[in-house]
Amino acid sequence: MSKIYYGVAYYDEYMPEDRLEKDISLMLETGINVVRIAESTWSTLEPTEDEYNFYHIDRVLDAMHRAGIAVIIGTPTYAIPSWLALKHPEVMVTTVEGQQKYGPRQIMDIVSPVFRRYAENIIRALLEHVQHHPAIIGYQLDNETKHYDNIGRYMQEGFVQNLREKYANLDQLNQDFGLDYWSNRIDRWEDFPPVENTINASLACAFSRYQRQQVTDYLAWQASIVREYAQSHHFVTHNFDFEWRGYSFGVQPRVDHFTAAKCLSVAGVDIYHPSQSHLTGREISFGGDVTRSLKHGRNYFVLETQAQGFPQWTPYPGQLRLQAFSHIASGAAMVSYWHWHSIHNSFETYWKGLLSHDFSRNPTWQEATTIGADFARLSSSLDSLRADHDVALLVSNEAMDALNQFKPGDAKTNVYNDIIRRFYDALYDHNIALDIINDVDESTARYKVVIIPALYAADDGLLERINRYIELGGRALIGFKSGFSDENVKVRHGAQPGLLSHVCGVSYSQFTLPEEVTVTASVPDIDCSHDNRAELWMELLTPLPETRALLRYQHPAWRDYVAATEANYGDGLAMYVGFLPQPFLICQLFDHLTRGISLRSCTSRYAFPLIVKRMKNSHGKSISFVFNYSEKPQSYHCEMGGYALLTDTEVVEGSSLLLNAWDFIIIES
Amino acid sequence: MSKIYYGVAYYDEYMPEDRLEKDISLMLETGINVVRIAESTWSTLEPTEDEYNFYHIDRVLDAMHRAGIAVIIGTPTYAIPSWLALKHPEVMVTTVEGQQKYGPRQIMDIVSPVFRRYAENIIRALLEHVQHHPAIIGYQLDNETKHYDNIGRYMQEGFVQNLREKYANLDQLNQDFGLDYWSNRIDRWEDFPPVENTINASLACAFSRYQRQQVTDYLAWQASIVREYAQSHHFVTHNFDFEWRGYSFGVQPRVDHFTAAKCLSVAGVDIYHPSQSHLTGREISFGGDVTRSLKHGRNYFVLETQAQGFPQWTPYPGQLRLQAFSHIASGAAMVSYWHWHSIHNSFETYWKGLLSHDFSRNPTWQEATTIGADFARLSSSLDSLRADHDVALLVSNEAMDALNQFKPGDAKTNVYNDIIRRFYDALYDHNIALDIINDVDESTARYKVVIIPALYAADDGLLERINRYIELGGRALIGFKSGFSDENVKVRHGAQPGLLSHVCGVSYSQFTLPEEVTVTASVPDIDCSHDNRAELWMELLTPLPETRALLRYQHPAWRDYVAATEANYGDGLAMYVGFLPQPFLICQLFDHLTRGISLRSCTSRYAFPLIVKRMKNSHGKSISFVFNYSEKPQSYHCEMGGYALLTDTEVVEGSSLLLNAWDFIIIES
Amino acid sequence: MSKIYYGVAYYDEYMPEDRLEKDISLMLETGINVVRIAESTWSTLEPTEDEYNFYHIDRVLDAMHRAGIAVIIGTPTYAIPSWLALKHPEVMVTTVEGQQKYGPRQIMDIVSPVFRRYAENIIRALLEHVQHHPAIIGYQLDNETKHYDNIGRYMQEGFVQNLREKYANLDQLNQDFGLDYWSNRIDRWEDFPPVENTINASLACAFSRYQRQQVTDYLAWQASIVREYAQSHHFVTHNFDFEWRGYSFGVQPRVDHFTAAKCLSVAGVDIYHPSQSHLTGREISFGGDVTRSLKHGRNYFVLETQAQGFPQWTPYPGQLRLQAFSHIASGAAMVSYWHWHSIHNSFETYWKGLLSHDFSRNPTWQEATTIGADFARLSSSLDSLRADHDVALLVSNEAMDALNQFKPGDAKTNVYNDIIRRFYDALYDHNIALDIINDVDESTARYKVVIIPALYAADDGLLERINRYIELGGRALIGFKSGFSDENVKVRHGAQPGLLSHVCGVSYSQFTLPEEVTVTASVPDIDCSHDNRAELWMELLTPLPETRALLRYQHPAWRDYVAATEANYGDGLAMYVGFLPQPFLICQLFDHLTRGISLRSCTSRYAFPLIVKRMKNSHGKSISFVFNYSEKPQSYHCEMGGYALLTDTEVVEGSSLLLNAWDFIIIES
Repeated sequence: MSKIYYGVAYYDEYMPEDRLEKDISLMLETGINVVRIAESTWSTLEPTEDEYNFYHIDRVLDAMHRAGIAVIIGTPTYAIPSWLALKHPEVMVTTVEGQQKYGPRQIMDIVSPVFRRYAENIIRALLEHVQHHPAIIGYQLDNETKHYDNIGRYMQEGFVQNLREKYANLDQLNQDFGLDYWSNRIDRWEDFPPVENTINASLACAFSRYQRQQVTDYLAWQASIVREYAQSHHFVTHNFDFEWRGYSFGVQPRVDHFTAAKCLSVAGVDIYHPSQSHLTGREISFGGDVTRSLKHGRNYFVLETQAQGFPQWTPYPGQLRLQAFSHIASGAAMVSYWHWHSIHNSFETYWKGLLSHDFSRNPTWQEATTIGADFARLSSSLDSLRADHDVALLVSNEAMDALNQFKPGDAKTNVYNDIIRRFYDALYDHNIALDIINDVDESTARYKVVIIPALYAADDGLLERINRYIELGGRALIGFKSGFSDENVKVRHGAQPGLLSHVCGVSYSQFTLPEEVTVTASVPDIDCSHDNRAELWMELLTPLPETRALLRYQHPAWRDYVAATEANYGDGLAMYVGFLPQPFLICQLFDHLTRGISLRSCTSRYAFPLIVKRMKNSHGKSISFVFNYSEKPQSYHCEMGGYALLTDTEVVEGSSLLLNAWDFIIIES
Repeated sequence: MSKIYYGVAYYDEYMPEDRLEKDISLMLETGINVVRIAESTWSTLEPTEDEYNFYHIDRVLDAMHRAGIAVIIGTPTYAIPSWLALKHPEVMVTTVEGQQKYGPRQIMDIVSPVFRRYAENIIRALLEHVQHHPAIIGYQLDNETKHYDNIGRYMQEGFVQNLREKYANLDQLNQDFGLDYWSNRIDRWEDFPPVENTINASLACAFSRYQRQQVTDYLAWQASIVREYAQSHHFVTHNFDFEWRGYSFGVQPRVDHFTAAKCLSVAGVDIYHPSQSHLTGREISFGGDVTRSLKHGRNYFVLETQAQGFPQWTPYPGQLRLQAFSHIASGAAMVSYWHWHSIHNSFETYWKGLLSHDFSRNPTWQEATTIGADFARLSSSLDSLRADHDVALLVSNEAMDALNQFKPGDAKTNVYNDIIRRFYDALYDHNIALDIINDVDESTARYKVVIIPALYAADDGLLERINRYIELGGRALIGFKSGFSDENVKVRHGAQPGLLSHVCGVSYSQFTLPEEVTVTASVPDIDCSHDNRAELWMELLTPLPETRALLRYQHPAWRDYVAATEANYGDGLAMYVGFLPQPFLICQLFDHLTRGISLRSCTSRYAFPLIVKRMKNSHGKSISFVFNYSEKPQSYHCEMGGYALLTDTEVVEGSSLLLNAWDFIIIES
Repeated sequence: MSKIYYGVAYYDEYMPEDRLEKDISLMLETGINVVRIAESTWSTLEPTEDEYNFYHIDRVLDAMHRAGIAVIIGTPTYAIPSWLALKHPEVMVTTVEGQQKYGPRQIMDIVSPVFRRYAENIIRALLEHVQHHPAIIGYQLDNETKHYDNIGRYMQEGFVQNLREKYANLDQLNQDFGLDYWSNRIDRWEDFPPVENTINASLACAFSRYQRQQVTDYLAWQASIVREYAQSHHFVTHNFDFEWRGYSFGVQPRVDHFTAAKCLSVAGVDIYHPSQSHLTGREISFGGDVTRSLKHGRNYFVLETQAQGFPQWTPYPGQLRLQAFSHIASGAAMVSYWHWHSIHNSFETYWKGLLSHDFSRNPTWQEATTIGADFARLSSSLDSLRADHDVALLVSNEAMDALNQFKPGDAKTNVYNDIIRRFYDALYDHNIALDIINDVDESTARYKVVIIPALYAADDGLLERINRYIELGGRALIGFKSGFSDENVKVRHGAQPGLLSHVCGVSYSQFTLPEEVTVTASVPDIDCSHDNRAELWMELLTPLPETRALLRYQHPAWRDYVAATEANYGDGLAMYVGFLPQPFLICQLFDHLTRGISLRSCTSRYAFPLIVKRMKNSHGKSISFVFNYSEKPQSYHCEMGGYALLTDTEVVEGSSLLLNAWDFIIIES
């Protein structure tokens, strides 16, 4: 790709009056060069079965083409028309809450043959119709696809069939999953009960994995249909999303991004984040790191992010710019707002677009025009940025599922994501840039450090590969609960943390919840005088003789136990942390782990709210972004000299630059 | 009507032993002159289908008549007998929770033809039997009727039929309701999906309005049956209630009181309120103002209010009297307790009546006897009080529905009522008496001031009538979100606040939630040194040149925006307030808006806990009630001279009177 | 029985590998002398219908026998195999939530004839197979049996049939239950509606009582089957449990322990309790007092208690010992852990056993070996301890049901248990040992004091027996709400507290919730200078002339009312307390009530955390246990001389002993 895409989702269908030409003119003024259309408009495209209406599609394609604005066509399958729900109630997904009722989007059974038939039909009808239009640059499959907690007949039957193919006899399944417990044993495949209400975490997690596999298969199926029509220069993408806590948070539990992305030519993502005084850039960075990693570091599309968004997100002056360039600094090749205009009816009336309901040139829109201009002006410097990090964070849908089956204490949230984000955020704030990985293999050797929090369920192979990574010189920070259970969520019955015990030089037989427990440091370079509270979980660690104790618990009953250790193994270094530390302590543990080596991933000695991202551009130049994520002005002492792209001025190494509230600078070196 | 009714609900059916004569003797001692009977006793009246038993009705009617106590007969339709539920399960209402199960009251499908048939039957049987009894003074239809969240077949079909009659073609409906969004478009009436799970607020609100219409129709249907039997001097009333927050709070979402009251000859109401240290009189006043307004200022019946009520409501000494006369001061012609005796079994065992379970002369009952005596003694002075307020508050079920579809931030309550009550309570505490209106038309000109909070959904006609009211000299305080969407809950796509923008001289394109935002005053007569927090919502207002800024936001990002404005328009004055102010600021804004004019509605310079109500009696005298809503004695400097009715003493203008805890005085001038 | 049983539940079926011989060897090392097996393994025993597999049972029985470890066989009926659920979905229990879905345990309809048939079949097959095995010492029926909130067809029909047998005509039922209210009257048995959604507390409580009766019948039915196979020296027991608040709390609402225990030869119990800094011994003591009382003071089995348990329960050093001997000190003849090994899959993976998942000799296990050794060594002194208390606490499932139908204010918990435990805990902390009774009769005369909190529903007979108990010299502390309603939950319509009014010399007609209400003392020996807050409920008491006021309310509106009274009646003393006092005040009221008499139940002048339990052993010696329930060392001034069993040393009366954190001493006198 050769330029930065600046886009919006555009819905001619939803307009209270015909505004197409006015909108396009305003888009050109904004610097918009791409629009997403069609992805939620099945009922408009096919108002009754087998009757099609391409009025809006055609006129938007034609008008955009005339204006030089590129178009992404979305397949319209994530919201079904009422006639389909009425004619075939079985296309509505069944969850533990029962069968869903018509109204919302994303309520279909994606493994239902009937749904597949109708979905294929509308995709083919649409693509047949538009395939040769010159405005089109690519296709988006569906929208934030998930399995929608499907426990329907096809999902259940498919799951059992899948197990049958894996297990020649049920004895092994009963043994692997521990089904003898509470009389859950199954001795004939015909007796296999619905998984829906199981109390067996092994079964529940296997089912969850199977559900995610159906998302992968569904997207691959759509991709294969789309590719029958797409031209060779058209990309095929999809907008992945994340766990939703009112904003994008951590790993998506219902999709395996890494396998699902295989069918795409470009990875895409939707990133929504807190704003105003809560804007930190953490979600932009996390979401970007995940998505960039899906295609081995290649640039990705931010297909949706907020312009004004929720009422509490209306951006402060400067924030929209800060956000847009933060996406670029993570490797995005497109920043596209959901959506152009604020919608006048229905569910998302208060999820505001770039334009308010009045279509006027509001202050947020005005700021967007400066972004559009800067994207155009700086595109040759910024359009193909590549990361070159030597730190990676390992995430795993399987570990998430398993850990969340056994949440510590009163935890109600997705604890796995709490933990992952605790580590990620601490390192982000510490200006450690990283890649996200979902496996460890030979290619992992390119990272000097791997962070492995809460790898609760993992097969022996993965644990052995981690050990091998360390043996060959890698340094790993391994978090509590890692290695505890195998790929079937059966707790290992040898010493814990399983196969990691040996390499980490540590073991434990007991654990508890920390209640007013703090830690003290056993080494001089770690400061535990504050932020020393142990949170969530604590393993009562016993180090082997050669293992170095780093931290100990402070508590009358547990003071004999170690809280974190470090051990040499082969040419590498294994740090094990038996509890959830506070962010300040995570940073210190990281610094301790990496003492004596220099890291490209360490982008600055400054810390949040001054965030520094460093990328390489297509001309081989180093591009440093320095972001002020606060409303307080910040002084930045330039660590590298270079050229300030936005202001067209020289930057002298060692000089000081002042960043105003929510401001940033970009330095080419 | 010629006297004050003092009443109780009486259930001979529920007695643990025959007490009729003992109770009547005690009632006479109390001063009770009216009882309500029959309204919840269908299963006693018709123990099995088509077999009737009027034993309790007859003996109570006869005994009351002998004692000179009047009787109101309630139609017994709000609680169905078990045989009906068993024979016709379809009479049980279906809600989003599923079909209701037998046990509670108010679980019937009021649009079911089968239910209607059985209900009509028992009403006719009962009225046929009692119609000539001389004890009867009137009839109460059903009890606190609502639509019970009915989404059943008849409700859904009726709703669609209603739309068909309104919309010649579906294109217009799709456009008005924005159904293209998320593929909700409907292209054939046969494809109309159940509304139950819709995400389209336009559709949901239209359905809600249709549900309320069925309540209106149902009551009108009962009224027409009752009138076939009622004699000309018999009244027909109904006991409306309010949103329930453990007590009566704000506008009733499930009934349109104004249209439903049309079929009644006297408006009736049930008012329950906090007690003990939480007794403020606000609910008595609000409920009274609503109910008095239903019949154009005519006296109304308080058909139910608490005697002892919930355990936490057991009245402090003096409170029962204070409450009773507060009802009278709002225009009530009847104060009737629910209920005479505390019930010994079932759901409301701890909703205590005037008598406790032991039927003894308890302290609350003793206080009631003084009320009974005073009602009798002062009836010629107090029995037909009329209000003459020149301030009105506009409420709207449609605005409530629409606003509550889009609650700001994390709000979970009925936000519309939160807002309405915030304004109402501030003015009540400020001793501003008012009427409640649900429309603005030519007759509104009799008010000098209209308060219009959160009129979120309104058609152009209403907005134009508001503008016209101001143009002709009215003064209006218009609250945030007013005018934002049309009658179909489609957001207006011109400048906001819609048609009110011009008259208010203000517009906005953006809004947000206030987080640590305060306001400052731009005019000298408003004090923002405290209680200056902006709550719930904030619109970023830009005034036109001639518009006066009254308040501005204090916040680094929003300080350029105005928070409240005032503009002359025609002969009137339009104040616009873009956020939810604290009560102290509402009072100041009101005073600012009304500077230079004198208001009959302004009853005192004192403020809560000293509440002053002023009414006119049938002899043309002014009756002032001065209530001390606190346990601290209060000194009241008499603003008018006159005659203290309770103590039979002269009151000299300018003299000081001492009010003890929960005490009050009544001055005739 | 002639020795202390020290046991574990053992699941050969759940093992990740064959460990039987290793485990037995480790058990012998621990001092384990009994194991519980089989109780949750139906699907392993009968993998498909009518095919049996006794592999695990046989090998465990044989191996245990060889090792001299006794075995308790549990009937495997509390968790059903999937084939049964699939073939006969009707065996799954239906609750108000709908029919339960396969997965968890305890989801069967225990009154379903089909379930009974299959359950009987597997019980007979198992017992037929094992009955002659010499390792067996007894049988456990099912596991923590309850009615599982069964509202299914058989439960409903049985309930109505039960009422028909009790009530010749429905008029009396309508009257007793107050069904006329809200049209709930029933005039033909055929019209009897499902009880599920009733708003009538009388009906709901009668149904609840009937549900509990089915548990009693079910256990008796299992006992009768088991006794066909059991040998005469075999015991039949069952593990009762309690209300569950994450640990055992108060009376079990779904079982009537006293009637259900009739079919057992030895009472058994499962007791789980907070640990670490929250370990108090209260649950051990309460659960023990209940269970010991079920069989008239005979020793009972603690069939399940925690070893490590939940992660937050991992015991501090010393706590496992403290717990084990606390059970013994309450009269337990067995302490058995659930469970031997921590399970590697499924629901209870984090409910850890004596061994962790790694089967290693962890610190908790190490502490267990000292318990095993001490049990063996001290068995002749400790194996048949008997209590000899002269204080009793009256509990009632009927009062609980009724009270919880009418929870004061915003209470959401089982309020009855809150109250019971408030009184129990205060007395426990005060070192008052007691028995738990569920009736008052002639045998109650052996108690000098009876505590009667919240006896909300009771028939006249019970109230009269309480009065008679006092008349004959008993002293009773009677708590608020006692006597208020009859056995049908109909509130009495005479003076309150019903028949207790006369004996207590007090009455009230009104009550309220205390809001910032404290009490003051009217007698010199009660100190109300602190901990004087009235909680939950307050009755506005009026004493008769001869009655002594003990406490008065401090509140402007209620200061004329009395809060607690004391009256002589016959030879006894009746104290009435109209509110929920703080623990410190409960102890003072108790001391006031018992002034002038000496109590065997008063075991020490010390208070929590120093808990003293005194029992008699089979040699007639007094055994005193002195427990330090805290991590702070405590000094104990010996009130009696004797012999310290654990340390084999003399204890001189009046000497001081030091107890370390969580330590205890046992003194034989």
